Amino acid sequence: MTDSAKASSEHANSAAKTPELQTGRSVRYVVGMAHGQVVEGQSASRRGRPGYDLESLLAVAVAVFNERGYDGTSMEDLSRRLGISKSSIYYHVDSKEDLLALALDRALGALFSIADQVMEPASGEPAIVRLERLVRGSVQVLADQLPYVTLLLRARGNTSTEREALVRRREFDQIVADLVAEAERDGDIRPDVDPAVTARLLFGMVNSLVEWYRPGKRATSAAELADAVCAVAFDGLRIRRTGNSAGRELGTIE
Amino acid sequence: MTDSAKASSEHANSAAKTPELQTGRSVRYVVGMAHGQVVEGQSASRRGRPGYDLESLLAVAVAVFNERGYDGTSMEDLSRRLGISKSSIYYHVDSKEDLLALALDRALGALFSIADQVMEPASGEPAIVRLERLVRGSVQVLADQLPYVTLLLRARGNTSTEREALVRRREFDQIVADLVAEAERDGDIRPDVDPAVTARLLFGMVNSLVEWYRPGKRATSAAELADAVCAVAFDGLRIRRTGNSAGRELGTIE
Repeated sequence: MTDSAKASSEHANSAAKTPELQTGRSVRYVVGMAHGQVVEGQSASRRGRPGYDLESLLAVAVAVFNERGYDGTSMEDLSRRLGISKSSIYYHVDSKEDLLALALDRALGALFSIADQVMEPASGEPAIVRLERLVRGSVQVLADQLPYVTLLLRARGNTSTEREALVRRREFDQIVADLVAEAERDGDIRPDVDPAVTARLLFGMVNSLVEWYRPGKRATSAAELADAVCAVAFDGLRIRRTGNSAGRELGTIE
Repeated sequence: MTDSAKASSEHANSAAKTPELQTGRSVRYVVGMAHGQVVEGQSASRRGRPGYDLESLLAVAVAVFNERGYDGTSMEDLSRRLGISKSSIYYHVDSKEDLLALALDRALGALFSIADQVMEPASGEPAIVRLERLVRGSVQVLADQLPYVTLLLRARGNTSTEREALVRRREFDQIVADLVAEAERDGDIRPDVDPAVTARLLFGMVNSLVEWYRPGKRATSAAELADAVCAVAFDGLRIRRTGNSAGRELGTIE
């Protein structure tokens, strides 16, 4: 309570310094109202344009969730980081969990869009080709939607929204495991590792990107990353005694 | 406050039912004192034997940290889960962060003990052999110390203890990257992937175990897991067109 009182007095101070509306992700829009006390009339036009649209508000919320953990983040924390009152957040969403649901849906939607393409029955491609396309597509999704997928991969099932997301993650994992099993039956993938374990190791490697890949910091593109993941996973690190060491050809048993 | 009042009244009830001291990880020892109000005399002998030793108290604390996140866990939460008062926890440690430090030290100590063996200058083994030993040893550590390594891998640097742990993690990552680079110079590892990226992908796969490996649930041993990780990482999933597809031989360019 002391903290929030301090925060709202800070808001009032900065509002006095910068009375004009500001938009954009990194600037603060100070509405000068605290803790649900909406001053009608004065705020009517502001409510329609509260400094953040849902998209930019979600981006900030997801960043805070990733920093502090979803459970460790309160609406008060979000309000402070956004520099707007809690009422202004409630203009866009009904609850903190709504923000989580939007973020997890975005990550899952992007991943399933790749999975759906790959599982298209008309494709007629061998399972190993589809598996590689799924890996490449997923790397691209991780790079494009990094904060959203990070949040998804850290979901532990503490809320019903997280539990639903975990169910969908398991569906995705099953698609991967089925492709690995099919590629094994085709004779394209080594049969000495259990398909479920193989699938988990493969996506363990893919998912590790959220821990270390920072698009702004390094020049490595998502396509280069996808090349590296596929090189390690499909062909292995060790240089082959015979044949093309960097070979991307499909190996088949004859 | 309502919750903690409820919890302490539950403690009082169960204390009435089971007045004798109990030890061990899964049983509750109820000291019948709440919120720092130690009843001297009555509790003097109990303070010396508060139901948990540091080891079992740490195990429960780490489980709670992993469930709720370190930042999202209060001493009150730990007190409730342990079924002992906060004073009884403070008998063992000065703060929640002490528990975190003990847990992260354990994980890092185990990982560096493997790294130190592998980096022993007298070993004379090629880098690729030492890299494989480091991977196998790390898989074993992850399986043996799963909750502790899980906590380590989730540390985000929100406290000075976490930041110190992240510094040591980066030292470990550097050891891996150096071994990969050396194995590349030896001609044992494919040169088309950046050593730092290779190192991260390799340990991304290893570290993913904390997300899905549950020793109690599956019969897969740590040694089998290590085999699977090394098979995928060093030899790749794809069946080789020529030669031994499950080959564990060291490939060299001639």
